[in-house]
Amino acid sequence: MAQIRHALTARRADDFAAWYQEVISAAEMAEESGVRGCMVIRPWGYGIWERMQRLLDDRIKATGHSNAYFPIFIPLSNFEREAEHVEGFAKEMAVVTHHRLIAGKDGGLIPDPEAKLEEPLVVRPTSETIIGDAMARWVQSWRDLPLKLNQWANVVRWEMRTRMFLRTSEFLWQEGHTAHADETEAKEHTLTMLEVYRAFADEDLALAVIPGEKPENERFPGAVETWSIEAMMQDGKALQAGTSHYLGTNFAKASGIKFQNREGSESLAHTTSWGVSTRMVGGVIMTHGDDDGLRLPPKIAPQQVVILPMLRERPEDQDLIDYCETLRTTLAAQQVMGEPLRVLLDTRPGKAAQKRWDYVRKGAPIIVEVGGRDMENGVVSMLRRDRLWDEETGKPAFQTPTREVAGQTIPDVLADMQNALLTQAQEHRDANITRGVTEFADVEKHFTASRYPGWMEVQWSKPTGEALEKIVERLKEHKLTIRNVPLDAIPVDGTCIFTGEPAVERVLLAKAY
Amino acid sequence: MAQIRHALTARRADDFAAWYQEVISAAEMAEESGVRGCMVIRPWGYGIWERMQRLLDDRIKATGHSNAYFPIFIPLSNFEREAEHVEGFAKEMAVVTHHRLIAGKDGGLIPDPEAKLEEPLVVRPTSETIIGDAMARWVQSWRDLPLKLNQWANVVRWEMRTRMFLRTSEFLWQEGHTAHADETEAKEHTLTMLEVYRAFADEDLALAVIPGEKPENERFPGAVETWSIEAMMQDGKALQAGTSHYLGTNFAKASGIKFQNREGSESLAHTTSWGVSTRMVGGVIMTHGDDDGLRLPPKIAPQQVVILPMLRERPEDQDLIDYCETLRTTLAAQQVMGEPLRVLLDTRPGKAAQKRWDYVRKGAPIIVEVGGRDMENGVVSMLRRDRLWDEETGKPAFQTPTREVAGQTIPDVLADMQNALLTQAQEHRDANITRGVTEFADVEKHFTASRYPGWMEVQWSKPTGEALEKIVERLKEHKLTIRNVPLDAIPVDGTCIFTGEPAVERVLLAKAY
Repeated sequence: MAQIRHALTARRADDFAAWYQEVISAAEMAEESGVRGCMVIRPWGYGIWERMQRLLDDRIKATGHSNAYFPIFIPLSNFEREAEHVEGFAKEMAVVTHHRLIAGKDGGLIPDPEAKLEEPLVVRPTSETIIGDAMARWVQSWRDLPLKLNQWANVVRWEMRTRMFLRTSEFLWQEGHTAHADETEAKEHTLTMLEVYRAFADEDLALAVIPGEKPENERFPGAVETWSIEAMMQDGKALQAGTSHYLGTNFAKASGIKFQNREGSESLAHTTSWGVSTRMVGGVIMTHGDDDGLRLPPKIAPQQVVILPMLRERPEDQDLIDYCETLRTTLAAQQVMGEPLRVLLDTRPGKAAQKRWDYVRKGAPIIVEVGGRDMENGVVSMLRRDRLWDEETGKPAFQTPTREVAGQTIPDVLADMQNALLTQAQEHRDANITRGVTEFADVEKHFTASRYPGWMEVQWSKPTGEALEKIVERLKEHKLTIRNVPLDAIPVDGTCIFTGEPAVERVLLAKAY
Repeated sequence: MAQIRHALTARRADDFAAWYQEVISAAEMAEESGVRGCMVIRPWGYGIWERMQRLLDDRIKATGHSNAYFPIFIPLSNFEREAEHVEGFAKEMAVVTHHRLIAGKDGGLIPDPEAKLEEPLVVRPTSETIIGDAMARWVQSWRDLPLKLNQWANVVRWEMRTRMFLRTSEFLWQEGHTAHADETEAKEHTLTMLEVYRAFADEDLALAVIPGEKPENERFPGAVETWSIEAMMQDGKALQAGTSHYLGTNFAKASGIKFQNREGSESLAHTTSWGVSTRMVGGVIMTHGDDDGLRLPPKIAPQQVVILPMLRERPEDQDLIDYCETLRTTLAAQQVMGEPLRVLLDTRPGKAAQKRWDYVRKGAPIIVEVGGRDMENGVVSMLRRDRLWDEETGKPAFQTPTREVAGQTIPDVLADMQNALLTQAQEHRDANITRGVTEFADVEKHFTASRYPGWMEVQWSKPTGEALEKIVERLKEHKLTIRNVPLDAIPVDGTCIFTGEPAVERVLLAKAY
């Protein structure tokens, strides 16, 4: 096999972290902003997020939720009402203390001491406490329930160590908040939204996630149950890609969400919350990227097909552009997986070959190049991002269908690519979950012996409190965490790998982002 | 004519401000949040904003812009670089000074003195200075220009007197930012975006705005030119509904947006910025609302048709629901003004008549009620929100087409209503602009004599500096402001109403929100 000259400098196998940063930069997805912990999301990266928003928003609305918008500022007193919640977030909150600037002694601006807020405001890290206030106003009777809200917003959690998309002080997300008449319905809804996330992650993002319940120590501050979807990255680490929380009556108590029930007496509502963030973009990179850059599942690609005429700044260029425009029109009129196909004809100045590599790095699913000879022959040169190289020759694996055939078959190629990426992610995940280990010593061995140990599924007795804390500490020595208790794990059979007591469920162990 | 019992308590003619608040509350659009100056946008209000976003976003993308996202926090030092800009915003900025909370002496939370930021951060009131930093990194050569960006975001300007949608400390908006190689192109683009706003306001929101240039004293802090679209509310006051700024090289200088031009030497970019916000929602209320609540142009109605079966909690209800479902399916399959028709079949518990008034107050364009007798006769009872009352009888003006005819004609009715609302707004505007006044004393007389004086178009000599300031002060005595210099005003003919010098252009005077 010939040597392939990949489009990136870093290699996944050599330095996954450096590779990740290079993809983000080479695909022009995001960059450091110069403001501590905050990133700039560039048009290509934001275009991916917009696609995710559109697809997830449709799913959220289809399950009966309405979008609304709540204040970015939360008074400290709101936070203080739920003890665990404030405990969980107090260490990482941006606090607004003044509402005006004036010139200081050296001429620079300073917060005006005369404009100090009586009660400092926190920039929302999450909105349970402020949405709870609104729910308390809106919910009077059982007829007002369930109340199903969602918000697309920015939130801030002051992070000391940041990594683009995965952990930034400001990030974008949606946070759903619902109130229900009873525990059964609220718990059911928590799982409904977990399933919405699973379907979104698998069907739209091709992530192959595992849904399950988080252990006690990993619960959202103030939650009774926390569920997650966990995705396996190509380095075998786990990424928590979305969470759904059953909050019991904790936040209803704190905010006073009470209603007159069918029997005429007063009840507390049971609430849920659930969120997915720009972190997902990081998950897509680390699941699908390769040594040539990003590869995008067609459903979330800002452009699914990019057409590059090989222009030479000559009068004949116009013929070439017209030839390409016909293909563009044909494609733009077609549907792919239920939506209009997104196609870009790029006629900006610059060499087609250079642009080709730009779009390879950006992960555009199909790149179509058209030169003068292609036009003469009535064909196009087509590159499929997930089959980029001819391994025999070490050259890009161009196909040359006629323009008409390209126009007809590209929608199917895109649908095929969507499936292929999911299959790859599933296969990678399934090949890298170790099962059947029964001794903790073997867990330690497994995770220290290999550079890419993947995940391990073990049985445990579901210890709580201090017993759990001890296990968590022990795992921490190997940088391991308990990811979740998979929803569809096979039944247990044997003893707990930590305590030796009879096992009650299976848990996933992994290093994680 | 019979007495009509309107659905609101307040009347526009009696107390426009109270009426405005009542519409917002009765239509469940928004409410005070309890956080100073911040409102909660409820699902119906947010649904209107989502419609506006979708329509405007399409227009912004169609003119070659990409969305991106920039940090919410701006370091003070960024602001200090452009003197006029900081001068304009320093008085109303939310300042973040700490990044952690701890328990204070009395047990309550306080900002942790150990976690004080070295440089305070401002919550963005607008993003020229932070986007300028990114532009400086991205623009190297003339080939990188024009750079056309847009951001959908929340911004904060600390307001002492707030009014829902019109003036809130936090609001939602889009802010476009572009960089160009020269003044001509940048100025042209400023006007292109003004026209995008005009078309959006007129064609989508039915506002009948007047585009024009703001006088010097009303310019955006740091701008060379500021243009606006001005809408006339039903009380004759003006609402600035969107602005487009040519920023010259002011922000390019401040942020260092330089490029190698075609000649190989270094040039400063010329930048523009332009924004439209949730304020537009207030403009829609005050333009189209009536004494029964909101009226929504169909293009921005979250639901264009609401079907209300008159359920009686009996087994026969299911037949009625099926009958309505057939109409819903027919309508949902149709296109209205280029988009799928939005129809809601509301089967929640509750009386249809009460729900009817809820949707009247919310401004749903068409309400369809269906009772047992309607079903027997194969008809539906249809109410058109812009022709609500039969003035003869004082009762709701129901029409009773067959279900099939309703299914076929409703798309046309919606398109007709969109036009009718625009025509009404245009007629109201045109009937309430006074022209031909040549003496300032008559201006004063006009604006003090009438409760609804509308706007006045006068000629002026375009004074600047102190001369302009004096005029502005004089107008202020009557709470008047110069709105803009209309783009398409007829040529001047005579002298300046303020200075007696030869007039050079026409300006609009009005009280404003």
